[in-house]
Amino acid sequence: MKLAISGKGGVGKTTIAAALIKSFAETHKTVYAIDADPDACLATAIGIPETIASGLKPIVEMRDLIRAKTGDGTFFTLNPQVDDVLEDYSYRFNNIRFIRMGGIKKGGSECYCRENTFLNAVVSSLLLDSNEVVVMDMGAGIEHLSRGTAKGVDLMLVVVEPSRNSINTANLVKKLAADLGIRKVRIIGNKIRSPREEEFIKGQFPPEEILGFIEFNHEIWESAMEPNSVAAGNLLAGMRKVREKILREAGDQ
Amino acid sequence: MKLAISGKGGVGKTTIAAALIKSFAETHKTVYAIDADPDACLATAIGIPETIASGLKPIVEMRDLIRAKTGDGTFFTLNPQVDDVLEDYSYRFNNIRFIRMGGIKKGGSECYCRENTFLNAVVSSLLLDSNEVVVMDMGAGIEHLSRGTAKGVDLMLVVVEPSRNSINTANLVKKLAADLGIRKVRIIGNKIRSPREEEFIKGQFPPEEILGFIEFNHEIWESAMEPNSVAAGNLLAGMRKVREKILREAGDQ
Repeated sequence: MKLAISGKGGVGKTTIAAALIKSFAETHKTVYAIDADPDACLATAIGIPETIASGLKPIVEMRDLIRAKTGDGTFFTLNPQVDDVLEDYSYRFNNIRFIRMGGIKKGGSECYCRENTFLNAVVSSLLLDSNEVVVMDMGAGIEHLSRGTAKGVDLMLVVVEPSRNSINTANLVKKLAADLGIRKVRIIGNKIRSPREEEFIKGQFPPEEILGFIEFNHEIWESAMEPNSVAAGNLLAGMRKVREKILREAGDQ
Repeated sequence: MKLAISGKGGVGKTTIAAALIKSFAETHKTVYAIDADPDACLATAIGIPETIASGLKPIVEMRDLIRAKTGDGTFFTLNPQVDDVLEDYSYRFNNIRFIRMGGIKKGGSECYCRENTFLNAVVSSLLLDSNEVVVMDMGAGIEHLSRGTAKGVDLMLVVVEPSRNSINTANLVKKLAADLGIRKVRIIGNKIRSPREEEFIKGQFPPEEILGFIEFNHEIWESAMEPNSVAAGNLLAGMRKVREKILREAGDQ
């Protein structure tokens, strides 16, 4: 299964992505954790030192290597021919395999279009066993959708908080994901402080679209100034439930 | 003066931008309010109905009109020749002139590179009187910097909150802004709940780089579920001080 996590800036995408990755790592053989946001911090959120993450080679450089291996410009199946190539561009952390879309560029030098296109190709090409999963943490907002970066995913998770703006973004994501042919979009309500806030989100989406709610976590908020703010235990518990719901839904089909 | 507002997703860029626009509108003849984030809501934050904002023609369409007017592909001065063109693509709201970078595209259709390039050209071309100001609300993160969208601005304001991640983004913004030749980058500390949080931010930047601190505003948080959450009065008061500091610094040079 291939999942992407999106939503408005600041709703908690990376925190949710990290907790979901950790929860999948408890039950799955390999979790591909892909950081698709050049301003993100998925690495540290899952416990990989930032120095290691920022030292990873940008995956766009893989292209030439893959061309050399496959003999032409296309690659439809990364496994098994080029799996060893991916090895060079990822970092193994227990059964998590961390991949970073792109490093920091010089100001005014260029956009991240090439990175987005190539990441789409890589994710689309990955052939997964049933005990493997891909979780991509997307950039804030919607451009990754107009670019089609997450085109090949099976499930788009949209994180919302109890705010009108984050709901508006979620509705946009739903619309654009449909353009991309992503058939399944699900909502996770984050930072819930009261039953009223949960009701507010429930009022915005059909019940079958909502995967779950995560309580507002003061521990995370208070630890935000620390060098390594780590996801709290009850968040992981919440994401285990989300994981089971995702797997159950996938099994029903 | 031309200002751009950036920072990590969720730090309060748009709220700060809207309050700054309103505070400049109290003292300046014209404030160009530019929404450079396709997933943003600057319009509603300054009191323009979303239906009007989303009905605005995308400014990229201006290009052909400007070419027709100036007779070639370049335009170095938008005023006075093509000021009437800009008129068609903006919305006047009291002495605020609202411009939107681009509308929503179909999923998988294309990136926002063209919009970013053109917006840079428009902002660079604007000749301002001393009682006119441009405030651009940039997209979350850093891609607008690697693209150089805000290349022509005099001042880059970076909004941070008391979190390590938002500080990291601010440091990246500083570095990339320097690449772009933007000489002045200033910090606004937002969502401050305690002296400890203010001290944390003060510890991260030289004192002359910090423009001010905005207290955490429960009113804004609580109103986030309302259709039109409006910036609270004490935020505007805080931004008047920031405005005066910006003008004083500019006058000193």
